[in-house]
Amino acid sequence: MHPLGDGIGSVSLVQHMGDDQSVVNAARVSYGQDRPGSGPLSPRDAKLIRYLLAHDHGSPFEHNAMTFKVVAPIFVLRQWMRHRIASYNEISARYSEVQDLHYRPQVFRAQATGNKQASVESPQVPQEQAASLWQAAWQESYLCYQKLLALGVAREQARGVLPTAMYSEMYFSCNLRALFHFLELRDHPGAQWEIRQYAKALEQLGEPIFPVCFAAWREARSAR
Amino acid sequence: MHPLGDGIGSVSLVQHMGDDQSVVNAARVSYGQDRPGSGPLSPRDAKLIRYLLAHDHGSPFEHNAMTFKVVAPIFVLRQWMRHRIASYNEISARYSEVQDLHYRPQVFRAQATGNKQASVESPQVPQEQAASLWQAAWQESYLCYQKLLALGVAREQARGVLPTAMYSEMYFSCNLRALFHFLELRDHPGAQWEIRQYAKALEQLGEPIFPVCFAAWREARSAR
Amino acid sequence: MHPLGDGIGSVSLVQHMGDDQSVVNAARVSYGQDRPGSGPLSPRDAKLIRYLLAHDHGSPFEHNAMTFKVVAPIFVLRQWMRHRIASYNEISARYSEVQDLHYRPQVFRAQATGNKQASVESPQVPQEQAASLWQAAWQESYLCYQKLLALGVAREQARGVLPTAMYSEMYFSCNLRALFHFLELRDHPGAQWEIRQYAKALEQLGEPIFPVCFAAWREARSAR
Amino acid sequence: MHPLGDGIGSVSLVQHMGDDQSVVNAARVSYGQDRPGSGPLSPRDAKLIRYLLAHDHGSPFEHNAMTFKVVAPIFVLRQWMRHRIASYNEISARYSEVQDLHYRPQVFRAQATGNKQASVESPQVPQEQAASLWQAAWQESYLCYQKLLALGVAREQARGVLPTAMYSEMYFSCNLRALFHFLELRDHPGAQWEIRQYAKALEQLGEPIFPVCFAAWREARSAR
Repeated sequence: MHPLGDGIGSVSLVQHMGDDQSVVNAARVSYGQDRPGSGPLSPRDAKLIRYLLAHDHGSPFEHNAMTFKVVAPIFVLRQWMRHRIASYNEISARYSEVQDLHYRPQVFRAQATGNKQASVESPQVPQEQAASLWQAAWQESYLCYQKLLALGVAREQARGVLPTAMYSEMYFSCNLRALFHFLELRDHPGAQWEIRQYAKALEQLGEPIFPVCFAAWREARSAR
Repeated sequence: MHPLGDGIGSVSLVQHMGDDQSVVNAARVSYGQDRPGSGPLSPRDAKLIRYLLAHDHGSPFEHNAMTFKVVAPIFVLRQWMRHRIASYNEISARYSEVQDLHYRPQVFRAQATGNKQASVESPQVPQEQAASLWQAAWQESYLCYQKLLALGVAREQARGVLPTAMYSEMYFSCNLRALFHFLELRDHPGAQWEIRQYAKALEQLGEPIFPVCFAAWREARSAR
Repeated sequence: MHPLGDGIGSVSLVQHMGDDQSVVNAARVSYGQDRPGSGPLSPRDAKLIRYLLAHDHGSPFEHNAMTFKVVAPIFVLRQWMRHRIASYNEISARYSEVQDLHYRPQVFRAQATGNKQASVESPQVPQEQAASLWQAAWQESYLCYQKLLALGVAREQARGVLPTAMYSEMYFSCNLRALFHFLELRDHPGAQWEIRQYAKALEQLGEPIFPVCFAAWREARSAR
Repeated sequence: MHPLGDGIGSVSLVQHMGDDQSVVNAARVSYGQDRPGSGPLSPRDAKLIRYLLAHDHGSPFEHNAMTFKVVAPIFVLRQWMRHRIASYNEISARYSEVQDLHYRPQVFRAQATGNKQASVESPQVPQEQAASLWQAAWQESYLCYQKLLALGVAREQARGVLPTAMYSEMYFSCNLRALFHFLELRDHPGAQWEIRQYAKALEQLGEPIFPVCFAAWREARSAR
């Protein structure tokens, strides 16, 4: 999984608990008809899942969990960590020296004209020029970081010169309800292209675990 | 697991994700030394877990999950559900008729004299008399519930006459950090005896999954 | 505010912070144009609020707070406290003796035929008969509670015979985002009539503080 | 309030709700003795607050709120936003051009020898040399940002070259319970000096609103 296409950024699934059946069981406890254990879903089970998603019954989607290992640039992690119904542990640049790894856009996009916060691909952006500016900026910054360390400056301060394109890594855990919410906001035309790639990677990893839930979620989403 | 000793209340473990090693991995991502996968913990790993618990580093204990099925009286569930960092789905007395199942104390305790909210075992409480009052009260209430249903009153209203000793059931999911917090408050001398039995049952079910974490948690707790 | 019409249940506003302007300011910090302080909203401000609600931008609605004092039956509080993004403190029946106060329905409703968890008003429910059964059930239960206390049984146990129609009281604090979510679920045709009355009371108390937000929220809600 | 001493970083109190009395009221609802309204605290009230803090009774400290406007470098905000029981709205570098404002340390600290993530003041760090490296790094980065914008690169991408020392601004709201937790972790010898200055500023702004709570909290903290 290399969401950003530069061979560094990645998302992998570390562990998971629960499946479509555990969603159905959690919902069926409402009327005393949960059947612990997993197994193939009946058409009635699938219908129940569609009903829950169409009517915003979120809690049955919480009795499960996924942990992902993520490598992403800081500016992506900053958007990510605004999601509070989740768990995070990230590498500390106070503890460890930051490695010489940064995100390099494959395509530099232009500012969109209609939406003040969006961007669009455009032939008018000189790609090579942008890429070499970007690359030089990183090298200068990283060199300065190294020099500050060499002067004896503490890591926690020296990192202040490193740009938000630098890669960081984290463990991220959430349940399916929170994941759907994340995907609704972050795999969305209004989201930044970079975080959308991560959202799509989460989607690809989560869907095989909860195929019926994902199908129902797509359906409910497109009906809105 | 029959926490209340009357053969009805129970706690069982439905599913779980993660182990001692996943706590260590989440902590070690801080310095880029996580090693995905499980395995026996080294003494250094165990020392790290003790360090985390002694210094209130809670987040590494969040990358795991447990789901429990719980059968408990309403007054216990009311205390339980005050814990907000957790997921709940409970049987609905709007949807299903409440069954003729209620908690019967094995021992009726006396009001404590020092602590205004506590209770103590005391030879002065006439056990048989209390038990027969209790039993009669339930029967009257349940009979009235049945009569209201027979008159055509909706379940969601009729249940209003049923006492908080009635049994309900739920799915409860949380991570280890939240579980430890639950146990600190609910397996505590200040907690009501009944919920303590449930806390102890959760402890017995959780400990085999996270033996090193539980040992370190007990140690940190007794040091406070 | 007597939501349940029996002169006991009530909701009152204890304190509040923020107004429509503070929502606008929190949103405008996104582009560095917040203007601390309150004042009449411009048409542009109102348009921004409508935009935020129509596009699920929830966070600007969090920089405010309301505290309510609520007196409600236990079965209503049980539904209420499932809302986890809020703060609660409730009277303790371990500490204080429960008072002889219980909810008495003005109208007993029949079980709905289409929806298994709903109820409807129906001429076929014999109101007087239901009311006297209900009343007698409470009296029996409360009498038994008193007798158990007289035998020396601890309050925390004795309360187990009291029905969920008994009144309790609590402080409830939340922000406007959480309040809107509460209202969407609890002032909803699918919610139980009793909690809907409380939701409506919260609405009446909150709306004068945030008139533009409420107007925009109703608009967004009816557009869905 | 200029926490970092360079005349840019700042914390100000925007609005607040509640006081020491509202903590007492929320606690006293437990035994039906809340007295809505504010007023001077009695010695018994103060004793209750000390009791609550000494025994980890957190919920009465939640029925209040504070909103702060914060201007801080990104690396500080990254630590700050790990606190999930709070509300945030931050200026968007997708929407607005980032201003030429960055944090400049008054003192460059050395890496600590005992603690791998800490730093200490040391005469061996050549301050002027470090400061001019730091300053040059910012200027290079900011110039590159300007050049990328001039080439037509979208703001959301171009910002990737800006370092985490750049200033950002946000609205931050929380209740007193969450604030105490923040202060315990962030005004702590193990926290980075920079965020400690922000924690101290929050403390100075919060203490006059809740003087009795803060006094009791300091007492409980030093007793641990």
